[in-house]
Amino acid sequence: MQPGTTGVVVQQIDRAARDVIDGLAEMGVATVHEAQGRRGLLASYMRPIYSGARVAGSALTILSPPMDNWMIHVAIEQIHDGDILVLGTISPSDAGYFGDLLATSAQARGCRGLVIDAGVRDVADLTEMGFPVWSKAVCAQGTIKETLGSVNVPVVCADELVNPGDVIVADNDGVVCVRREAAAAVLEKARARVANETAKRERFKAGELGLDIYGMRERLAEKGLKYV
Amino acid sequence: MQPGTTGVVVQQIDRAARDVIDGLAEMGVATVHEAQGRRGLLASYMRPIYSGARVAGSALTILSPPMDNWMIHVAIEQIHDGDILVLGTISPSDAGYFGDLLATSAQARGCRGLVIDAGVRDVADLTEMGFPVWSKAVCAQGTIKETLGSVNVPVVCADELVNPGDVIVADNDGVVCVRREAAAAVLEKARARVANETAKRERFKAGELGLDIYGMRERLAEKGLKYV
Amino acid sequence: MQPGTTGVVVQQIDRAARDVIDGLAEMGVATVHEAQGRRGLLASYMRPIYSGARVAGSALTILSPPMDNWMIHVAIEQIHDGDILVLGTISPSDAGYFGDLLATSAQARGCRGLVIDAGVRDVADLTEMGFPVWSKAVCAQGTIKETLGSVNVPVVCADELVNPGDVIVADNDGVVCVRREAAAAVLEKARARVANETAKRERFKAGELGLDIYGMRERLAEKGLKYV
Amino acid sequence: MQPGTTGVVVQQIDRAARDVIDGLAEMGVATVHEAQGRRGLLASYMRPIYSGARVAGSALTILSPPMDNWMIHVAIEQIHDGDILVLGTISPSDAGYFGDLLATSAQARGCRGLVIDAGVRDVADLTEMGFPVWSKAVCAQGTIKETLGSVNVPVVCADELVNPGDVIVADNDGVVCVRREAAAAVLEKARARVANETAKRERFKAGELGLDIYGMRERLAEKGLKYV
Amino acid sequence: MQPGTTGVVVQQIDRAARDVIDGLAEMGVATVHEAQGRRGLLASYMRPIYSGARVAGSALTILSPPMDNWMIHVAIEQIHDGDILVLGTISPSDAGYFGDLLATSAQARGCRGLVIDAGVRDVADLTEMGFPVWSKAVCAQGTIKETLGSVNVPVVCADELVNPGDVIVADNDGVVCVRREAAAAVLEKARARVANETAKRERFKAGELGLDIYGMRERLAEKGLKYV
Amino acid sequence: MQPGTTGVVVQQIDRAARDVIDGLAEMGVATVHEAQGRRGLLASYMRPIYSGARVAGSALTILSPPMDNWMIHVAIEQIHDGDILVLGTISPSDAGYFGDLLATSAQARGCRGLVIDAGVRDVADLTEMGFPVWSKAVCAQGTIKETLGSVNVPVVCADELVNPGDVIVADNDGVVCVRREAAAAVLEKARARVANETAKRERFKAGELGLDIYGMRERLAEKGLKYV
Repeated sequence: MQPGTTGVVVQQIDRAARDVIDGLAEMGVATVHEAQGRRGLLASYMRPIYSGARVAGSALTILSPPMDNWMIHVAIEQIHDGDILVLGTISPSDAGYFGDLLATSAQARGCRGLVIDAGVRDVADLTEMGFPVWSKAVCAQGTIKETLGSVNVPVVCADELVNPGDVIVADNDGVVCVRREAAAAVLEKARARVANETAKRERFKAGELGLDIYGMRERLAEKGLKYV
Repeated sequence: MQPGTTGVVVQQIDRAARDVIDGLAEMGVATVHEAQGRRGLLASYMRPIYSGARVAGSALTILSPPMDNWMIHVAIEQIHDGDILVLGTISPSDAGYFGDLLATSAQARGCRGLVIDAGVRDVADLTEMGFPVWSKAVCAQGTIKETLGSVNVPVVCADELVNPGDVIVADNDGVVCVRREAAAAVLEKARARVANETAKRERFKAGELGLDIYGMRERLAEKGLKYV
Repeated sequence: MQPGTTGVVVQQIDRAARDVIDGLAEMGVATVHEAQGRRGLLASYMRPIYSGARVAGSALTILSPPMDNWMIHVAIEQIHDGDILVLGTISPSDAGYFGDLLATSAQARGCRGLVIDAGVRDVADLTEMGFPVWSKAVCAQGTIKETLGSVNVPVVCADELVNPGDVIVADNDGVVCVRREAAAAVLEKARARVANETAKRERFKAGELGLDIYGMRERLAEKGLKYV
Repeated sequence: MQPGTTGVVVQQIDRAARDVIDGLAEMGVATVHEAQGRRGLLASYMRPIYSGARVAGSALTILSPPMDNWMIHVAIEQIHDGDILVLGTISPSDAGYFGDLLATSAQARGCRGLVIDAGVRDVADLTEMGFPVWSKAVCAQGTIKETLGSVNVPVVCADELVNPGDVIVADNDGVVCVRREAAAAVLEKARARVANETAKRERFKAGELGLDIYGMRERLAEKGLKYV
Repeated sequence: MQPGTTGVVVQQIDRAARDVIDGLAEMGVATVHEAQGRRGLLASYMRPIYSGARVAGSALTILSPPMDNWMIHVAIEQIHDGDILVLGTISPSDAGYFGDLLATSAQARGCRGLVIDAGVRDVADLTEMGFPVWSKAVCAQGTIKETLGSVNVPVVCADELVNPGDVIVADNDGVVCVRREAAAAVLEKARARVANETAKRERFKAGELGLDIYGMRERLAEKGLKYV
Repeated sequence: MQPGTTGVVVQQIDRAARDVIDGLAEMGVATVHEAQGRRGLLASYMRPIYSGARVAGSALTILSPPMDNWMIHVAIEQIHDGDILVLGTISPSDAGYFGDLLATSAQARGCRGLVIDAGVRDVADLTEMGFPVWSKAVCAQGTIKETLGSVNVPVVCADELVNPGDVIVADNDGVVCVRREAAAAVLEKARARVANETAKRERFKAGELGLDIYGMRERLAEKGLKYV
C-alpha cells in the first residue's frame, strides 16, 4: 500500500512476536536506537504526557486529515492486544485529536498507548488511567469527523516513516520505530549492548574512567590534545 | 472600557455566581471548551507549572507594559475571594513577572491562581504553596516597576480576549475563558455533556466501538472507505 | 585561555570556597540572580529533566564539537568533588550527548550535575540516580567521538559565558552563573535579600499589600493611575 | 458585538476619514506605534510576503473557524474602497486561507491588502498583482468552507485586539492597529514626531552625536558610567 | 527498497515523462496540491533561498547521516537531466550540507534544484547561478564525510515521504511531491482546475462575488448566518 | 575586562589591519568559517534585513540591558571608520533597539553595519540607506534608556563570544567572528581555500565528479556502499 493513500483500512497486518516486543520494551528507547544503527528515532518534540512509562507494541497506523480524528474510531476496531496507535497527519496540527473516551475504548481492546504527531487532551484522565501518550502538544481544541484518511498504511509520524506492524518503543527519552522484520535481531543486539553496559557501569561506579575503559588516551594524544 | 487602555484600575466588576464557577472547575477545560461551542481556548503554549491542579475563578485582568510587573501589586488589592489573576502584556516577554512573594500576597486575599502570558519564577515555592500558575515560560529574570498598565480592562492573553469577570477554567489541558454572562448556560451544557460521556464511557469500557455507538459505519461507507 | 580554543585541557582551575557554593545553593536561582544585579542567567529554554533538584557547584566547562561528546570523557577525569559539568557546543544540537553511563562515572567522582546546551538521554535512569541535568532537549540520538574540543576554557552555554570555576546554581527556575571572584559577595547580598523577603512574606501572609509595604501609592498617583 | 461571536455579519461599521488613513500610511508602522504610546503592535511573526509595501486602511475584520475560509467570501461583499482585511482564527493554523482568486476579488472591490494570523498561498501571483499580505506563514495547504465565523466583530489577530473600522498600518516593520476614534490625534502626533526626526536626522548626518543632541552625558555620569 | 535503508545506491529509477513534469511546473505548487487531493505537501518551514523560481523535476533522493553530506557527491553521479535532489536526514540538522561547488557540479549535470530538510550555504552564489534551493535553514556550518547514507531510497523530507522518481514541484508557496504513477493524471486535473480558475478570475476581476459565483448564500443562511 | 561587566566604556581597543578586514569581506562567511577551523559562527537565526550585502569590520561591542538601547548612543561616539556594531543583550528580546536615526548617526561616523541579537526597525529606510543589519527579528516595538550596559567589553551575541576588535564578517549566509589576533592567518587560509575552490569549480563545471576529484570511490567501497 502506497504511503499517503487515503480511504483504506488494511485489516490484516503482520506483527512481530510478542516476546520480542516485550523484550524491546525492557531495553528502552536509547538502547534500541543504538542497537539498530541509530535510525528510526522520532523527532525529539514528541514528549510523554506523564513521566515513567516505558512501553513497546505493534504499530497500528492512522493517517488523519487536518483536524479530523474520524479514523481513530475506525482504527480502534482493528486493535489487537499489544498494539500501539501511531497517528500521522496529512497537514500539521496541534489540536487535541484524542481524549479519555477514545483512550477508554482503546484500552478496553488491549491497546498499550498512543504516539501522535499532533495534540492530545484529557491528559489528567489519561494519566490516571495509565494510558501513556507521546505527542507534539497538549491542547483541548477538538477535531471533526468529516474526511477519510486510512488505517494501517505507512505513515510519516514526527519525521519518521512507520509501517503497520513495525515495533514502537517509547519511554521518557522519546519514541523509536523498529522495522518488524528486524525486531528480533535488534533485540539481540540490544541485549548484548545492555550486558556490555552493565559490566561497564560497575567499573564506572568504582571510579574507573572512560578514558581507560575505552582506551581513548592514545587517540586523543594523536589528535593533539594538550594538557596544560 | 476600551481594550488596551492604560492607566486605569476598574474597581467594580461583575462576577459569575460562585456555585457556577465551582461547577465549571469540576467540568474541566476540554469539556467546558466543547460545551461553549469550541471557543475561548487560550493558546496551547500556556502550561501549568505543576501537574494536577484544576481550578476556576473570576478573571481579575492585568495589562502589563513590557517587562514591568507594577500592576500586579495594584491588582492584588482588587482581589475578591475566588478570583484568578489573568495577565496580558503590551509586548511579548518571557521574563518572570511573578514569584513567591506576590503569590503569598495574592493567596492571602483569596486568589486561586494566575494565568500569565509571560514568565513566572520561584516555581518550586509556588508548587509547595499550592498556588497554581499557567504560563508561557519559567524564567528567573526579574521585571521593573516604572510604567502604568491597567487593572480590570479587557486584555488579550495567549491569543484570547479576556474580560474582567469572565470565568477562567484551567487544568492540565490548558486554560479556557467563559464569558461571564454565558457561564451558567455553559455549565448546564457541560453537565449534560459529562452525563452523556459517563454513559458512553461504560460502553467503551465494555468493549463497544465508537463505530457502533455513534453509528458511523454507514457514513464511512458512503464516503467510500474500503476495507482490504 | 581564549574562549573557543580547542584541543586544550586546563587541569588547574580555581574554585570558590565550598561553604560559599553551598550557601548559594540554598538561596536558589531567582534570589542569586537578583543579588548579583540581574546578570548571569542562562536562557530560559534550559529545563531540568526532573522537578525539585536545587544544586550549586564549580563549573567544569566543556566545549564540544557538533554531535561529538568525546570531551565529556576527558572532562570527567578533571572532576573535583562538588563540580558541575557545563557543556557548550561549537554548533547547536539537540542530540543526546550524555546518558546514564557518563552520569555514573561523573557521580562516582563527586559531580553534582550537568548543565548542557544540547540534548540528554536515559533521563529515567538519571532521575532514579538523582543526577540532575538542565538541558535544551531530551533526545535519544547518540553522538560520536572524532574531534577535539576543550575542557576548562570559557564556554558560551545557553547565551551566557561561563568560566571554569564560576559557581553554577540551578533549580526549577533555571540556571545562573556567578563569577568565582564575586561568589562570596553575591552570597552575602543574597542572604540579606532572603532575610528581607522573609520579613515581607509574613506581612504579605497577614494580608498587607505591596502597595503599602513598598509605599507605591504616591508614585502610582503621580504617574496618573486612575481608580474608576 | 462581543468579541468571539460567531454567525454574524455586521454590515455597517464606522471608518476613519480617508485623509487620516492615508496620512497614517505615509508615517509608517514604527512612527505610528510610537505616536500612540507604544500600543497596538501585532506580534513580530507577522511578515510581508514581499518587501516594500506600505499601506493603511480600515479594518474589515474576519473571525475564522479552524482551517475554514468561508467567511472571507462573506467579508469581500462588505469591502468598501480602502479597506484592509484582518483575519483572526478561532484556533491557530498555518494553512493557506487566501490565494490569488480571493485577492482578485478583493482587489476588484477596492481592498488594499490582507493581514492574516494564519497562512497564505499563491504568493508569486499576489506579488505580481501588487496585493500586499502580512501573514504568519506561506503555505499551499487549502482550507474548507463548512462552519460559520463572523465578519466585522472584534477579533484577536497576532496577539492584538482589532475592532472593525480601526485603522491598520502595515509596512516592512510589521503591522500596527490604531483605534478609529484615536486615528486623527495619532496622525497629528506622528507628524510632529516625523518633523522632529527630520531635523534630528540632518544633525546626525552631519556627525553630531545622540549623546549631545539628547543631552545624555550628565545622566549617564550620574548613573555611574565609567570611561576607561 | 525499505525506507531508511543505508549503504545503498539505486542506479535505475523510473521517471515520469518530461512533458508531464514540465507541465506540472507550469501549474505551480498550490494548484498541484489541490489537484491531487491535498496531499504530498512538504512542511511549510521549507522556504526558497530566493524569490521567483518555479521548477519541477524527478526526485533523486538522498538519505544523509547527521551532519554528513558525503552522499550528495554520490548522488550527483546519478543525476539525469531534469532531476531535483531531495535530501532527508537521519537526524534533524540546520547545518549547511550544500554550497556553490556542489551546485556547480549538479547544475553541470542537468540538475534543476535542491530540496533539503536541513541547511544550505553560499546562498548569494546559488542565487547568482540561478540554482534554486528550498531548505529549512541557511547556515554556513559545514558538514563531514564519514558515514554512509543512501541514494534513491524512499526518504522522509520535511514530514513527507518522497520516493525516487516522484515528481517534485516547487515555487514560492513551497514544495509538493506527486507520486510518479499519478503524475499524468494529476497534471490533467491541474489543467482543468487552472482552466476553471481562469474563467472565475475574469468574473472576480469584473467585481462578481464568490457568494454568487459559488452559490453560497443559501447554505450560509441555512447554517444561520445573520446580517445585522 | 570581564565579560558581562556593566557600566563601562572601553575607549581604546585594538583593531585588525584594514586590508586584512577588507580581504576577509571578499572571502565571505562560509569560506572564513571553514578557514578558521569551523568556529566563530553566530547562530543561524541571525538573518540580514536585505539580501546581497557582504561586509567585514572591527567589532565595536555593546552589552544592553533588557529592552534598553541607551548604550547604542554611547557606542556610536566610539565608532572608528570601518567598525561594525555588535550588540548582545543581558536578557533575550525581539524589540526594535535600532532604527533609521541611529543608523544615520552610525553611518555618518563610518560604521559598516550592525549585528544585533534582538530586533531592528525602520528596515525599509535602512535598506534604502544601504546600512546592512543582521538581526534576530524585525519589530517596531521601541526600547527605553534607563539602565547602563557597557561598550567594548566581550559580549555573547547569538551564542558566540565576541571580543571588541574581533573581525566580523557577514553576508547572506550569516555572521562569523574572527579573533583579531588570528585575522591575518585566517585570511591567508581563506585565500588558499578560494584558490583551490576556483580550480575545482572549473572541473565541476566541466562535468567532473566530486567522487573522482576527491578520490572518494575507494573509501566509499571500503565503508560498504553498494550500487544496485
